[in-house]
Amino acid sequence: MINQKELHLLHKGLLFWDKLTQPEKELLNLSANSVHFNKGQSIHCGETECIGLLIVENGSIRTYITSEEGREVTLFRLQAGDICILSASCVLETIDFDVSVDAETDCDCIQISALTLSRLFSENVYVELFSYKLATERFSDVMWVMQQLLFTRFDKRLAAFLLDESSKLNTPDIRLTHEEIARYLGSAREVVSRMLKYFSKEGYVTLSRGGIHIADKDSLRGLL
Amino acid sequence: MINQKELHLLHKGLLFWDKLTQPEKELLNLSANSVHFNKGQSIHCGETECIGLLIVENGSIRTYITSEEGREVTLFRLQAGDICILSASCVLETIDFDVSVDAETDCDCIQISALTLSRLFSENVYVELFSYKLATERFSDVMWVMQQLLFTRFDKRLAAFLLDESSKLNTPDIRLTHEEIARYLGSAREVVSRMLKYFSKEGYVTLSRGGIHIADKDSLRGLL
Repeated sequence: MINQKELHLLHKGLLFWDKLTQPEKELLNLSANSVHFNKGQSIHCGETECIGLLIVENGSIRTYITSEEGREVTLFRLQAGDICILSASCVLETIDFDVSVDAETDCDCIQISALTLSRLFSENVYVELFSYKLATERFSDVMWVMQQLLFTRFDKRLAAFLLDESSKLNTPDIRLTHEEIARYLGSAREVVSRMLKYFSKEGYVTLSRGGIHIADKDSLRGLL
Repeated sequence: MINQKELHLLHKGLLFWDKLTQPEKELLNLSANSVHFNKGQSIHCGETECIGLLIVENGSIRTYITSEEGREVTLFRLQAGDICILSASCVLETIDFDVSVDAETDCDCIQISALTLSRLFSENVYVELFSYKLATERFSDVMWVMQQLLFTRFDKRLAAFLLDESSKLNTPDIRLTHEEIARYLGSAREVVSRMLKYFSKEGYVTLSRGGIHIADKDSLRGLL
């Protein structure tokens, strides 16, 4: 069961709500669960049973793929109000790949189980359409990442990432380890450290134990 | 207008056919076109108007992305009976990326224009569902390519490609240039040539002007 605020988010987030019959609405209201994930907790991964659709209430969840050797490439992150559909991939018959989903911070989500979703799929075409449309939106995210990975020079990518983080958090100080940055960029820590050292030598950034300070925004922008 | 054989393919390929009203069926039958593309011809690319959905009657079409420097990465190929939906990306609102589509061989397709498709979208939810479901299938294809690109060692990838081509065409002789193979694998000609030279030194393949002969299938398999 979920509370009033969550019910509101549920009805707002699931754009097919108005197309549901009364019994379908009741099924959703009753079967929706509130779940909490701790920072770093695994939410979904290839081998385990799929947990269904998640509506993010707060916090951030990260979707990525992992190589045999343990290298990770982030595909996209979801925040408050976003809906995670790939955690319900078992219900989507044209999806035959597996991704991992982790809680990037502590977070709360509303969960619609795979069972409920699959029952709604068989009853209401709008639920199915909503899900595949959302999957196609993730397809767009992944294509962006793929183009970044394949075609952008690494200095460009790192500069874009630093500027992006800085403007998102509205501070020139980026408190991420080289390891974390490498993970976001699908690269290796060594590569990030080497490039940051170069940036620092050029006076674009200053490095400290606590993180990275953007010292010359314009020059970083010049790399893009 | 299309002929009887094409009408049959149209009704068989578009899985939503039975869900259409009589006027919708007539609209589709009347507006479907038969189009021929010559080998190498561009079918769709980012900047031009989108031509709509294509059902491949014969031949092969290739979807790929191109970098600023002209490097190409093949995402997937479609053959007889397959349906190309990304050429109708303007109709799919959750797609915001652009791909290129070329005729890999001479080919004939049945075309449903973006206009007709968009009209059917607004009238019949099953047409929309079909399209997004198909887009999600392509998402699966692309994820496979992405994993190949990111995580497989190149000797593995090349061996897998050669074995795959050989078994598809049921011959140990692969009549492709190093340039073509590089394009399929999202790599460079030099890289392919170097690896083939290594394969040849190991006795896995013999190289000639006409192409590549697989001499030792088992050893190639051993690389996978």
